[in-house]
Amino acid sequence: MKRYEIRLAGSGGQGLILAGIILAEAAGVHDGKFVCQTQSYGPEARGGASKAEVVISDEEIDYPQVIKPDLLLCMNQRSCEAYAFDLKPDGLMVVDDSFVHDTLTTLAVPLPFTKIAREEVGREQTANIVALGALAVLSGVVSLASLKTAVLARIPPGTGELNEKALDAGIAAAGRYLEEKAGKSQ
Amino acid sequence: MKRYEIRLAGSGGQGLILAGIILAEAAGVHDGKFVCQTQSYGPEARGGASKAEVVISDEEIDYPQVIKPDLLLCMNQRSCEAYAFDLKPDGLMVVDDSFVHDTLTTLAVPLPFTKIAREEVGREQTANIVALGALAVLSGVVSLASLKTAVLARIPPGTGELNEKALDAGIAAAGRYLEEKAGKSQ
Repeated sequence: MKRYEIRLAGSGGQGLILAGIILAEAAGVHDGKFVCQTQSYGPEARGGASKAEVVISDEEIDYPQVIKPDLLLCMNQRSCEAYAFDLKPDGLMVVDDSFVHDTLTTLAVPLPFTKIAREEVGREQTANIVALGALAVLSGVVSLASLKTAVLARIPPGTGELNEKALDAGIAAAGRYLEEKAGKSQ
Repeated sequence: MKRYEIRLAGSGGQGLILAGIILAEAAGVHDGKFVCQTQSYGPEARGGASKAEVVISDEEIDYPQVIKPDLLLCMNQRSCEAYAFDLKPDGLMVVDDSFVHDTLTTLAVPLPFTKIAREEVGREQTANIVALGALAVLSGVVSLASLKTAVLARIPPGTGELNEKALDAGIAAAGRYLEEKAGKSQ
């Protein structure tokens, strides 16, 4: 893996910065890659937009920000509109279709992270962790074991069980998606 | 303020990544500056080192990482040794002298953040928030009101009072330091 660029985008309050930190620690501390993790704030942050970027590489990283994402997560409609066309031609776009109704491309993977967090996990605020579980399965960019370790290291005390449940729900949702897709293509 | 570079360095587990996020949100979301906040992980992260960087500017930021810090926080001895000589000539270096015994320069400001967190706040893990309060006073780079808002937005639920106490203890410690220094120079 030369250089793999990830952008997590949505609204403030959806936990994308924490998700970026967790993903970076999974890859950097536990999987032993070189990783840079960046947040940028500017005029757009005052409008409630949130964006976290992670660059993962087997080699030292010269430029720490995302140029063209290999993996793009859009947790709301506006982030799709802002970033869908930045994606690399063979990149992977995943959207939370609890909120995104027009993905702007038929190649996006729609999964209802927030709905899963609310209905399966029992806490809407775990949508970020649900999404991380799914991203790990769909992209293969971090190991599930490292991701679980990194999640448990960063969440508030006493929420381990809840967040493990969220992670597992995301992994299962991505698994169902891949199964269905394989079924269709047969 | 054209471009102001901050590096927070120490051991994994000292809460420097959270401190970087809080500082970035105070300046970017609440004070309305352009801000980039970066963590890098690599071979050194496996040795337990931790580093968070924040670049704050009134203008859009071209390069998001710290080149030569204007403000350097060292929470352990090793980070002093690694970074003391990167500091800008007129930069500000602040060290946690609970752990740092040789600051390598007489210009560093020594404050016992971890000791204050343990003895005054009652919880050693709040040393990062104690340090943020002191950095805000010593550097003036973020407003205390924005910093408090940003702290309260990022800490685990139920720890608001504790973290406000930590922030205030850091502000007071920096105040005492400035007073003493002013006294000496008279």
